[in-house]
Amino acid sequence: MADPLPQGAVIGILGGGQLGRMLSMAAARLGYRCHIFEPGADCPAAQVAAACFTAPYDDPDALIEFAESVDVITYEFENIPTEALDELEIIRPIRPGRRALAVSQDRLAEKEFLQGLGLSTAPFAAVNTAADLEAALGEIGTPAILKTRRFGYDGKGQARIMAPDDAPAALASLEGAPAILEGFVDFSLEISVIAARGLGGEIACYDPGHNIHEAGILRTTTVPAPIPPGLAADAALLAGRILSALDYVGVMGIELFVTRNGLIVNEIAPRVHNSGHWTQQGCAVDQFEQHIRAITGWPLGNGARYAGVEMENLIGDDIARIPEIAREPHAAIHLYGKGEARPGRKMGHVNRIRL
Amino acid sequence: MADPLPQGAVIGILGGGQLGRMLSMAAARLGYRCHIFEPGADCPAAQVAAACFTAPYDDPDALIEFAESVDVITYEFENIPTEALDELEIIRPIRPGRRALAVSQDRLAEKEFLQGLGLSTAPFAAVNTAADLEAALGEIGTPAILKTRRFGYDGKGQARIMAPDDAPAALASLEGAPAILEGFVDFSLEISVIAARGLGGEIACYDPGHNIHEAGILRTTTVPAPIPPGLAADAALLAGRILSALDYVGVMGIELFVTRNGLIVNEIAPRVHNSGHWTQQGCAVDQFEQHIRAITGWPLGNGARYAGVEMENLIGDDIARIPEIAREPHAAIHLYGKGEARPGRKMGHVNRIRL
Repeated sequence: MADPLPQGAVIGILGGGQLGRMLSMAAARLGYRCHIFEPGADCPAAQVAAACFTAPYDDPDALIEFAESVDVITYEFENIPTEALDELEIIRPIRPGRRALAVSQDRLAEKEFLQGLGLSTAPFAAVNTAADLEAALGEIGTPAILKTRRFGYDGKGQARIMAPDDAPAALASLEGAPAILEGFVDFSLEISVIAARGLGGEIACYDPGHNIHEAGILRTTTVPAPIPPGLAADAALLAGRILSALDYVGVMGIELFVTRNGLIVNEIAPRVHNSGHWTQQGCAVDQFEQHIRAITGWPLGNGARYAGVEMENLIGDDIARIPEIAREPHAAIHLYGKGEARPGRKMGHVNRIRL
Repeated sequence: MADPLPQGAVIGILGGGQLGRMLSMAAARLGYRCHIFEPGADCPAAQVAAACFTAPYDDPDALIEFAESVDVITYEFENIPTEALDELEIIRPIRPGRRALAVSQDRLAEKEFLQGLGLSTAPFAAVNTAADLEAALGEIGTPAILKTRRFGYDGKGQARIMAPDDAPAALASLEGAPAILEGFVDFSLEISVIAARGLGGEIACYDPGHNIHEAGILRTTTVPAPIPPGLAADAALLAGRILSALDYVGVMGIELFVTRNGLIVNEIAPRVHNSGHWTQQGCAVDQFEQHIRAITGWPLGNGARYAGVEMENLIGDDIARIPEIAREPHAAIHLYGKGEARPGRKMGHVNRIRL
């Protein structure tokens, strides 16, 4: 295996939100500096990074200057414009690589990739027209969800179809964007597994966490998840197949439905993931450091967990509860340095340690 | 109690070394930004801070600009020139306050303060001249240590006197600096207690750690320390008396000798302390966050420990052992982003979790 990036090397992070912020602090713990690329001013990551490039993704000069100032490029979100990636990758390696981005940027490509690996997904069909939608509903039935193929997150770009009559309004709400119809899955709970693959191909997984969503946004993740050990092993094996098939380097978040017939893959995210924040408490190497280890050529942490943790997202006005939470004896608080607490905005999270 | 500093407020840190670096990351977790003041270029803290003022401590314009850019001022080392503090404190509050600095900047004042509280210290005497030293040696005997009253750290500014004949060379080595002669203490082990006092006067202590030094530099701190529970309680009570007497706000490191006759105070440091780095693993609120909580008016963490930890400093070439350490399953690595691994230079530390 090649030597890891030397001490003092610079990691370029596309995106300056809370994930970039926590990646930057993890990189610092390993002796690296981070440069952030982010269109928005005064971003959370810039407050804890060595430098920040504030420019839009269609500014090639800024992209080139950024890329030339770093040793390796990574990202905190998957919806990076393809043209920007084209500019960047001729200058420095991008990890995780383009294949993972291509798959995860497109719900249809993602589902086809997963089924190609023999993994179970929700039933799905591509939808570009009203006729497509009618045919898809005939095949999949209702209830179902119509989703844009690209640029969805936190429940945005989605419309539920409870009965065939809902179809026209659902299609209209997506404003002509290419879409995918997904059937509902009858699941008992949602878990996610945070997996990592190193430059040398080795894989490490954290214990699956149990996710609870509210209004399409992750509310809590709890480890250990209330699942039998065999299912946790299945989740790790499945993660290994996904990462290896993509020749992946870095941390990936994989959301899974637990059903009577085993695990169904809901979604993959080629980055550190909100449902992996619990690893900041209870693991020697958290998901942020694990990602930095992977992309810089360090050996991976083994993912072992030495405490139970409940992660709760602090969304919008939840931030007003900080004075109480600060008095809880086992609460580790992680705030993101964002200015305004808008509804639905992730302002921070708290990891409660359960021994 | 007053409200804590609001989200987004700025903490000014005097000193840009590893302690400032870890304070800055802890402040970020609580939603604060940090501005660093540091004479040296490219300091470790600047890599993870919102801004850095690179200027000497005798540059009043830079000090004023720094102070006006922040909401509260703290520091990572106690030997800040008095004149700089005079400039700063008319602009913003300095926490911990001047009294703690005055006491801890001068070994003689520190010993007299501790004895005034009825606490035990090593026998000591002020030494300004050869005659003073002769008298002090007559009283205290040998072996003894001659130390400069000010600006000592990591074993610097010290000379051992094993027999009276060593006295002239020892005195000469201090080059005329006002000094203090300290008698040796017959101790079984050294522990330290990391204590904090909040703006409202509340106090919290972490479990005492067992310190091992090599060549005058801390090598390891291990919790739990091999001492009876009663002694740990004594250490906490003693810490409470020291912090309250100084009307202290922030974290203090207190080094103690364990002797047949109980605890003897070796040294106090009015800041986060190397022997408290273990709190980064095994506590919901580590010493760095505890310090930020104290100076910004948050409630303190309770100091509870949920794992055993051995902290090992990585000094000079120890950094070359990182590839092995990175493969240890329970090792949490913290590197400082320093360029050159000079002998005696603290390059990082590792916290090994012991369950």
